[in-house]
Order: sequence, then C-alpha cells, then structure tokens
Amino acid sequence: MEILKGSITAPEGFLAEGVACGLKKNGQPDLTLVISDTDATVAGVFTTNKVKGHSLVRSMEKLNGTPKRGIIINSGNANACVGDEGLSDADTMAAAVAHAIGCHPDAILTGSTGVIGKRLDMNAVLSGVTQATRLLDTSEEAGHRAEKAIMTTDLIAKEGVVRIQAGGQTITLAGMAKGSGMIHPNMATMIGVMTTDARIAQPLLQQMLRDVTGRTFNRVSVDGDTSVCDMVVIMANGRSQAPEIQPGTPEATLFQEAMTTLATHLSRLIARDGEGATKLIDIVVNGAATPEDAYKIVLAVGRSPLVKTAMFGEDANWGRILTAAGYSGADFDPAGCDIYLGSLKVCAHGNALLFDESEAKKVLKKDEIQIRIELQDGGFSDRLWTCDFSYDYVKINGSYRT
Amino acid sequence: MEILKGSITAPEGFLAEGVACGLKKNGQPDLTLVISDTDATVAGVFTTNKVKGHSLVRSMEKLNGTPKRGIIINSGNANACVGDEGLSDADTMAAAVAHAIGCHPDAILTGSTGVIGKRLDMNAVLSGVTQATRLLDTSEEAGHRAEKAIMTTDLIAKEGVVRIQAGGQTITLAGMAKGSGMIHPNMATMIGVMTTDARIAQPLLQQMLRDVTGRTFNRVSVDGDTSVCDMVVIMANGRSQAPEIQPGTPEATLFQEAMTTLATHLSRLIARDGEGATKLIDIVVNGAATPEDAYKIVLAVGRSPLVKTAMFGEDANWGRILTAAGYSGADFDPAGCDIYLGSLKVCAHGNALLFDESEAKKVLKKDEIQIRIELQDGGFSDRLWTCDFSYDYVKINGSYRT
Repeated sequence: MEILKGSITAPEGFLAEGVACGLKKNGQPDLTLVISDTDATVAGVFTTNKVKGHSLVRSMEKLNGTPKRGIIINSGNANACVGDEGLSDADTMAAAVAHAIGCHPDAILTGSTGVIGKRLDMNAVLSGVTQATRLLDTSEEAGHRAEKAIMTTDLIAKEGVVRIQAGGQTITLAGMAKGSGMIHPNMATMIGVMTTDARIAQPLLQQMLRDVTGRTFNRVSVDGDTSVCDMVVIMANGRSQAPEIQPGTPEATLFQEAMTTLATHLSRLIARDGEGATKLIDIVVNGAATPEDAYKIVLAVGRSPLVKTAMFGEDANWGRILTAAGYSGADFDPAGCDIYLGSLKVCAHGNALLFDESEAKKVLKKDEIQIRIELQDGGFSDRLWTCDFSYDYVKINGSYRT
Repeated sequence: MEILKGSITAPEGFLAEGVACGLKKNGQPDLTLVISDTDATVAGVFTTNKVKGHSLVRSMEKLNGTPKRGIIINSGNANACVGDEGLSDADTMAAAVAHAIGCHPDAILTGSTGVIGKRLDMNAVLSGVTQATRLLDTSEEAGHRAEKAIMTTDLIAKEGVVRIQAGGQTITLAGMAKGSGMIHPNMATMIGVMTTDARIAQPLLQQMLRDVTGRTFNRVSVDGDTSVCDMVVIMANGRSQAPEIQPGTPEATLFQEAMTTLATHLSRLIARDGEGATKLIDIVVNGAATPEDAYKIVLAVGRSPLVKTAMFGEDANWGRILTAAGYSGADFDPAGCDIYLGSLKVCAHGNALLFDESEAKKVLKKDEIQIRIELQDGGFSDRLWTCDFSYDYVKINGSYRT
C-alpha cells in the first residue's frame, strides 16, 4: 500500500488552517484547525500519564461517541498544570471555534503542546481562532499550514495520504503528526490527527485506532520521556460514496491496513525526526517466548542511551544491545541470541563473532539502521522505531523553557 | 559519622596493588588485587542482568560462605560474551593469584569491567598478576593504585574510610568503587569493594550488605543502562581486636551504619562522576502512599533525559519533573504534589507557582542540586542520586569500543 503526498485535507469534506497567533516567541505558526464540513465520527487515544494537560482532559471528556466537527490545537504552550483556568481556557478555545463555524462547542475537540505550567495567552488564541476560521480551506496547502502550526521542536513535516477502493469507490485517509522529543510508548506518544471520508461507526473506528496505535504510534521512542498532552484522533465524515465499513468484512481489513500504513509512516517520521537524531533505528525482535518478552526487549534496546550513542558514533557495539536485552526484564536465553546490524551478523549464540569491521561501518553509515535480535525461545516478534542520540539532543533540551 | 581519607588497605591485614598489564590500549593501570593476609568472610551482591560476565559468574559460584583471601579485578575488558573460554580465563586468573600468595583458587574472587565480546589477553593478565602479587602492599598508596586500576571512564577516584568503636576497640571499614556509565538501580550497578577488619559471620554480613546496597549503590542512576559485570563485595577478616559482631546488638547497628555511610559516600561519587556529568542531582520523594510508589518516582525522574538535560542547562523546568512522576507508574495525586529545587518551591498542588527566576538560577548554578517532590498520599520516602546529561555523555559513548 502506497503513501501518497498530500495533507490532512485530502479526504472529501475536510478543511484546515494553521496560523501564527503569538504563542510561540519566535513568531512561528502555533494554532491549527482541522474541520469537517459535516458531522464526523471520531475516535481517540490519549496519554496514560497521571498528569494530563487541560486541553487533553477536555477532549477525553467530550469523546463520548457523539459526532464532532473538528479539533483546535495550539503549540507553544501545553495548557497543563495551571489550575482550574486551564480547563476553562480549553472550553473557551472550543467555543470560539464552534461559534465561528456554527456548531455546538462539544463538537470541537482541543489539544495543546508546548511548555508546561504557563497559562495560555487567551487574547492570542482568540485572535488566532478568528483568523484561522476565516481562512479555513480544503486546499492541500491549507493542510500543510495546519501541520506546520502543531510542530514544536520538529524539523520535518509529518504528513501522508493513503487511498483504497471499496465498493467501486475511493476512500481516502490522511494524517499529520507532531513529535520529536518526550516520545515513548504506552502513552499515545505525540499529537496525531487523521482524517478520512470513510463511513464507519464510532465503536469500530475506536477499536481499529486502538489496535493500530498499539503497533505504530506506541512503538516509537525518542528519549523514554512521555508528555502530558499526547493524543491521536481520527475523524471519519462519511463523505466518500463507498458503503459503510462493517466489522469483519474485507473492507474493514483493508481500511485498517490503510490506517496502519499511514500510522507507520507517521511513526517512522517521528523517530527519524527525534530531537538531535541523525539516523532512524529500526529495532526488531523475533523468536521471543511471549509477546511481552519481545516488547520488553525492543523497549529496553530502543531506550538505551548507550545503544543510541553507539549508533550515533557508528560503533558496532553489539555488547550494549545484548546488555540492554539482558536487563529488559524479558525472560530469554542469552545463549540462543543472535544479533544483526542490517544484514551483518555480529553476535551468535550470545557470543562475539569475528565480523568485518568495514562491513559494519557501511551498515552504520546509513541514515537508517536495523538492529535485529533473533532468539530461540518461541514465535513472538515485536518492532520499535527510535533514533540515535547526538550532541544536539542535549543542546535542544538544555534550555527549552527559557 | 565521618568519611576519612584513605584507601582500601586502611583496615588491618589488607594488601592491595594496581598495575598496568596492557589490557587498556592507552597503557593506563588495568589490573587490581585486594588481598587479606588471613581468611576473610565475604559477602557479595551481583547484577540481575540476564547476561552476565564470565568473571562475575565465577564469583557468584564461589561465594558459597567459605572463607576467601581476596579478589582480582581487571579493567579494559569485561570478559563477557566470549564463550566457554571466558570462564576458564577467569579460573586461570584466580589460580595465578592463588599460586602466588599460597591459597586455594576458590579463595580468590574475580571481576572484570570494560568492553564486551573480546577475549581477555591472558598473557597480559598473567604478567600483570606476577607483577601485582610481587608489589602487594599495606600502604595507603598501594590502595590508591588498586582503585586507579579498576577505573574505566571514571574521572575521579572513589574511595573512603570509616572508623567506629566497639568494645573499646577500633573497627575500620574502607571502600573503593568504579562506575561512571551503564549505571542504574536494581543490579548491583558498578564494581565496589569494601574491606573491614571486623569479625562477623557470613550470613549477617551478607544480609547487611544486601540492605545497605538497596539504599545506596542501588539508588544511583547515570543513564538507565546497567552492565553485565556489576558487583559489590565486602571482605571482613576479623583482624580488629573488637569482639565478633552479633546480630541485633548496638554494635551491629553501628557497623551497618558505618557501611551505609561508606556506601552512600561512594554512591554519591559515582553519580557526581557520571559520564559527562557537571552536577550531582539528589532526588528525594516524601509523602508517597507506598515504598514502591516512592521508588518508581525517584527512578523515573532520575532516569529522564529531559530532566537531566534541563539540569545541565540550568533550566527550572519543573514541568518535566512532574511529567516524569506522572509516567512513572506510581499511584499518586498530582493535585497534592509540591516540587522544590533546593529550598525554592517551584510547583504547588501540581500547578505552576510564580517563582523568582533569579533565585532558581542561583540554585541551579550549584554543582549539587536537590529535586524534592512532596506528595500528600502517605508516609513513604525514597532517594536517588543521578547527574545531569551533557554533550560529553554523547561524546564519551559515541565511540567507546573503537
């Protein structure tokens, strides 16, 4: 299934806009709207952090199966840990959008990302809403501007489009995401918005999103930290001529595959654009005794600063990979463990192999490196995307707030 | 209780030496002996990593309650993941020492630290043993040389001496440690050797060491990685004139307090000397509902690259501290959470406080920073030492092996 160029407005009936309203000190775009011109079914997954941003808490509350019209997301300020005003500010943001487009405030979800513990400048937000609602547009460019305005330390835009055929008709899915630091599994890990013109009932959409997120957005780690504002939402407005997607049909399988393809694409972009990253690291474990063991190993290897700095230094230090697997908490037999860097085997049965260092250098020089761990304990696999750990990660994060 | 200057040879009847035998490419000292001139009771705690170095596995096997005479430790090579020869190399090291000092090989423990997956150069090791056994000495300087020869990326020596009075006699404890990267709790986390001239039965010594390690060596994190060679051992040779330490007596309490003081000192030095560290970070949690919750929070905050880079950048980014607590898995009420940097309160009831940024700068400029998290969920506390995360961590670890 192919990833096409395009933006969040690619499916029928979606408008978007991104503007600069003054929340970011540097004057960069910081307020995004994604709106469906008709009611849409919406599903969402949210951070499992005990501490949650106010805009996110509001979205969790409003996501009760009733139709929605869109979402407003600001960057530059997380709207988190500011007390009761945080929730009322989120309500005000949503109400302003609802007023402008003519819908109930509960039909507008809210998201925020940025610095924690500072109150939103509501004058800026409201003037941004006025400006953005006036400009709302179905063009591809408007979608690109929407993506731009949710980015924080991101260096590259994370967007993609997938098309499938169902009942002789085209269904389009589009997605955009932000996320570069504070990225780790088991919270929805970033802000992601997907749109589709498919017709699908909310419970099925929610179940699919949860499954897909588990294998994509929740399999990205940049630094082991996870934010209080992480959310992934998908809006389905049924504007395609294709019949409604029914559970258990080939169309449902195809639609979920399209969502997986799109989410995988966005997840890999997040890992590749990890703060300070110079390489995408694709970590694969096969042959684990249980799914949990496979997961623990990809997680520990993908989180290890020692593995990540070795990849940055293009050093074939497989001992650190085996060591991370060893402390992961997974039950496995080290004596059955083979490790590959790309196609080069560097460790057999848990022991050193004499390998060609110049071959290893070739693999490690690439901007995408696969670390593959083959166990002999069972039939379970897992996979996680991360990045290397460079000087720039420290630079970016040493003075983020001030 | 005061930490005195001195080295591992401070207690009666201990000899030590450290020499350069050629395992380290740069010619630095890399082979250490610590020997008791009479039989000693020995206790040890070892890494919980599934992957274990061969020298460490041998020590675990030999630590069966029988008396020991000493330990040989090499640096520059972990003697790990090299197959069956690894264990026989460890046996050979021990046998060479035993032959030179006249004891059974099983009375000599073994430790190794350094690069994983390369076989030990046994010619170098054996010539080092010949040299070191010839030079073995009770002088303070010999002890300092022993410390020097277990260091890898360590920049400062980690040594200390504590003295207590029991039955009108002096008991001396001394310790040395190495550890700078691959440091994280729940494995014995580094190589530490303590000596004492106390007389004490093995089971009591083992129980005390386990308790003390739990609150000291296992409360240090540099990078969340843990090695396959971590061990802490203590040798007690009974050469002091003080009576044997009996369980449940004031002397036992005093002795354990001395061990705790010494181990705390060494643990703080390890955190302060963390790879690339510019600051020691002391993380304290009070008011947690359970000990596990307190532990989870200090662990998550102490491991967070975002917290650690903020400390490097002297940025009072308390939002990252609260966020790390939030994803730690601990059950706590964020609305009851206060956060202090030094004595400056920066977050009250989980929300932002207007604090004096110049006061914050003063706290953050210091080379030791306390992060204190006050909860209102119960009466449990925990504490962990870590360091900030700097450019140099990446530099040191980007090309360690090659």
